[in-house]
Amino acid sequence: MQIIEFANLQNIITNILLKLDFSSKDASSLAEHLATANLLGHHSHGIIRLPIYYQRIKESIADPRAKTTHEDISPSIAFVDGNRAFGQLASIYAANLAIEKAKTAGLAAVGINNIDHTGRLGAYVQQIADANMLGMYFCNGHSGIRMQAPYGGKDSILSANPFALAAPRKNLPAIVLDMATTAIAHGKVMSAKNRDENVPEDCLLDKDGNPTCNPLDYFDGGSLLPFGGKQAYKGFGLALFVEIFAGILSRARMLSTKRRQDKNGGFILAINIENFLPLEMYFEEIDALCNDLKASQVRQGFTEVLLPGERSNKIAAKQKEQGIEIAQQTWDDIVSLAKKLDINI
Amino acid sequence: MQIIEFANLQNIITNILLKLDFSSKDASSLAEHLATANLLGHHSHGIIRLPIYYQRIKESIADPRAKTTHEDISPSIAFVDGNRAFGQLASIYAANLAIEKAKTAGLAAVGINNIDHTGRLGAYVQQIADANMLGMYFCNGHSGIRMQAPYGGKDSILSANPFALAAPRKNLPAIVLDMATTAIAHGKVMSAKNRDENVPEDCLLDKDGNPTCNPLDYFDGGSLLPFGGKQAYKGFGLALFVEIFAGILSRARMLSTKRRQDKNGGFILAINIENFLPLEMYFEEIDALCNDLKASQVRQGFTEVLLPGERSNKIAAKQKEQGIEIAQQTWDDIVSLAKKLDINI
Repeated sequence: MQIIEFANLQNIITNILLKLDFSSKDASSLAEHLATANLLGHHSHGIIRLPIYYQRIKESIADPRAKTTHEDISPSIAFVDGNRAFGQLASIYAANLAIEKAKTAGLAAVGINNIDHTGRLGAYVQQIADANMLGMYFCNGHSGIRMQAPYGGKDSILSANPFALAAPRKNLPAIVLDMATTAIAHGKVMSAKNRDENVPEDCLLDKDGNPTCNPLDYFDGGSLLPFGGKQAYKGFGLALFVEIFAGILSRARMLSTKRRQDKNGGFILAINIENFLPLEMYFEEIDALCNDLKASQVRQGFTEVLLPGERSNKIAAKQKEQGIEIAQQTWDDIVSLAKKLDINI
Repeated sequence: MQIIEFANLQNIITNILLKLDFSSKDASSLAEHLATANLLGHHSHGIIRLPIYYQRIKESIADPRAKTTHEDISPSIAFVDGNRAFGQLASIYAANLAIEKAKTAGLAAVGINNIDHTGRLGAYVQQIADANMLGMYFCNGHSGIRMQAPYGGKDSILSANPFALAAPRKNLPAIVLDMATTAIAHGKVMSAKNRDENVPEDCLLDKDGNPTCNPLDYFDGGSLLPFGGKQAYKGFGLALFVEIFAGILSRARMLSTKRRQDKNGGFILAINIENFLPLEMYFEEIDALCNDLKASQVRQGFTEVLLPGERSNKIAAKQKEQGIEIAQQTWDDIVSLAKKLDINI
């Protein structure tokens, strides 16, 4: 394992991205996104992605020089075209656009299409929450990989179909719920496989549709189950609506056989709290709610009630102090990528 | 068990409501809502509620003569005040308002407060889908009963905090996802208790915060768990956001100690599809998506992949033909209520 300081990690990523032909503004923005994912402990969305991004640029699937554009439909609706940009750059752009529109319209919807890997959704709803708005982000079709079976079915049809929600607080970190609609992330099954470990129950099907805890069965034509355990029909229902928002309403048309492509679609909603009630009243209410929840007596096996996002914030605070833990394999891959690009790290 | 035809059930309910001083328009509207809940197999939201409604009217908690009013904030935002109306009447009103606003604004949000029992949420998002829009409804604080523990906690703090989503289809029933954020409905625990049966795992805590399958433990100071099984932190996160929308943004201020009251809050979003893409293109896309999902091979133990709402539609089709099955106890309670009100049924 490598321990790397946040600023250092950000620099390393920036240097690699500059060599990959990103503008300095885009390199710095994307580096901040990726390094922050590592900082928060979401390593699957951090520096580990660079070798894949390198590959996708080399194959002209994603374009480091892409200019994100948008079409304004009405005071509250717009569409963002990533033009094959990395999803982080187009999503930051789209979230800003949603914020600007919601400032006047009260609520705004922005569809996003033609983007590469979307990155950590929590970042964009956090961005919206920082503007004192409620944010939602729906995302479909992670680069065309179909991995999620519908409830009752055994074919991999949907992607992880994640979504994120955020709500601001006063002088406290926003509440950020960032979740896949699958019971387990693809990346976690991969890690379990690499460690020769089983995954928990109710997460995987093998290729014949039988429940399994063995990661090898998943990679041998199996699928991920929607989350929810015995109520996985609820997780499936949510996955379906993520697809409707991010795949259809976004105009990404991910599922149409005519336009199916190796790209992601997204859909953002921004709701300006001040158009609904005075901000101070909102903050008072959300404090009352959160305090009520945090004051609950704790069950055995838990040390406290954590609000969505709190666990990541604790990890970030610790890693800011002690450095960020990067897995050795990830680090080795970065070192060899840097060598290939003639960068000293 | 009693078998009653839909039209007959609707008549019985209408007659009871007329005696409870509802206007004929409101009686007929509420009767249709309740009878449709029974028709769809959602018996917990059907005629079984009448004796409770009778009681709440007698105690002046709910007002059968209440006039729902609204305040327009902007082209896309409004607030509905039920003035102690039954939630169904105020919610139908609010959904209509959201539809009208979304027709011009593209998307609209309507907060709902000061209503009694909200009824079946699926009905209002269905109403929005019937106008070729996507609908969302968040609902909190079922009449002040706190029953849901936060993930990791053991105190009952939230209500069942349900929400519903609907998406229209062409010449086919809308997709309707109508779900509590708890793993099991309060009503189902009550039925299990009456039948002396256990409930499934991962649904209940006893008063000490230990997992239990015994309904008696729940009624002895226990709580409902958020849905999600091992991923119940996701269900809890959703419950929290339902509270933020329906309890805070709605201006219902359900959780503030200053205004805590025996009422529900609601929040509706209506999104007019035509403002995003041509309706025909949307229908083509959603057909492609649904056909893909329905064509999945089926797992052992399942007979087909069901989309959200399909199971209820099948029950409704059967009960339309063969009559609606009303549990004997429910029927006996209705007969005795009718007698009290001097109505022949």
